[in-house]
Amino acid sequence: MTITITAFERSPDGGKGLARDTRVRWALEEVGQPYEVRLVSFRAMKEPAHLRLHPFGQIPTYEEGDLVLFETGAIVFHLAQRHPGLLPDDANARARAITWMFAALNTVEPPILDLSNTRIAERDKPWSQERLPLVEDRIRQRLVQLSARLGDAGWLDGAFSAGDLMMVSVLLRLRPAGMLDEFPDLAAYVARGEARPAYQRAFAAQWAVNTAKSQAG
Amino acid sequence: MTITITAFERSPDGGKGLARDTRVRWALEEVGQPYEVRLVSFRAMKEPAHLRLHPFGQIPTYEEGDLVLFETGAIVFHLAQRHPGLLPDDANARARAITWMFAALNTVEPPILDLSNTRIAERDKPWSQERLPLVEDRIRQRLVQLSARLGDAGWLDGAFSAGDLMMVSVLLRLRPAGMLDEFPDLAAYVARGEARPAYQRAFAAQWAVNTAKSQAG
Repeated sequence: MTITITAFERSPDGGKGLARDTRVRWALEEVGQPYEVRLVSFRAMKEPAHLRLHPFGQIPTYEEGDLVLFETGAIVFHLAQRHPGLLPDDANARARAITWMFAALNTVEPPILDLSNTRIAERDKPWSQERLPLVEDRIRQRLVQLSARLGDAGWLDGAFSAGDLMMVSVLLRLRPAGMLDEFPDLAAYVARGEARPAYQRAFAAQWAVNTAKSQAG
Repeated sequence: MTITITAFERSPDGGKGLARDTRVRWALEEVGQPYEVRLVSFRAMKEPAHLRLHPFGQIPTYEEGDLVLFETGAIVFHLAQRHPGLLPDDANARARAITWMFAALNTVEPPILDLSNTRIAERDKPWSQERLPLVEDRIRQRLVQLSARLGDAGWLDGAFSAGDLMMVSVLLRLRPAGMLDEFPDLAAYVARGEARPAYQRAFAAQWAVNTAKSQAG
């Protein structure tokens, strides 16, 4: 069955790969599944047709026959369950890899989302500059802990897994703010993720969409 | 094998059930698995013995034989995979229930965490009062969307699932701020969750810990 995902018609990051469709493209490339992409405008994202697929009016969505999914974590997990390459076979190792997916999305990403809000959505608010160090310190606390756990290992728990895919994707969001450079071991971890051929293909695919659009626009 | 979870020796909410161990207790009760609880002080949470279980120094953790898990989402998912009661059998319905788990944790909870930060951690900051309406509006946007999707249904996708367990748990965090009352349909959804016997047992268990402590203290 054909897999169709949605992505921004014009990504807010202009093709840096930080939009969430890159996470799903990466997972699809890791498990070797072909997919089609339907581009969605900001206006269309809030219209009933898209809201039927994604109740929160975001991208990406995932369609495969009768199945409709939203939420990057759920889509990546679905792919990881169905196809080899993103989760270990051993039951305990599998549960631990899934743990890292949730840790990326519910422990590490929330303060990073707050940083994006502070730097972009609240840029013109009177508190923005004064509040920034506090938000950055919340992130640093998580990065210190993550770095301590990673230690000298290549990936978070044995072989590369969906947990690493998600954690690298979340950490990538720190690059525009320059915070990743404060943690050379985590920067190297992210670079290992980016060096994977599957990531390279995913990045190139989203880049092609966004550069085509900016030339057209 | 005995299941052991960790919980706050003294919960910051004094027993309102908002600490994350309640989510895991609820899941354990739904699937009918007995468990033991090890209470952890704030100091012990940051010490090496606990950090070996939970790299981010939080509760709950989950131990079952050789398996050690952290992250509420991962623990609830692990229980839901192993035991009947929290995920439907049909593969597509199962994927959709898992989607709601991720939606609760990565789309609905982050702005709610920001509200807690604004109301508590940043209470004495000069921007706190001025920033509050903006944070609340971000939450309202999600609640409007969630309410639209829920419609007249009892649960988010067919029968009660781990997705509802997580969404109800996340929405409960809005009660102290009074925001849940703005959305009577979501307040009723949360009340349906709280009315489940498994939730009642989970709540009572965490309450017993916290009231015992406050009498002792």
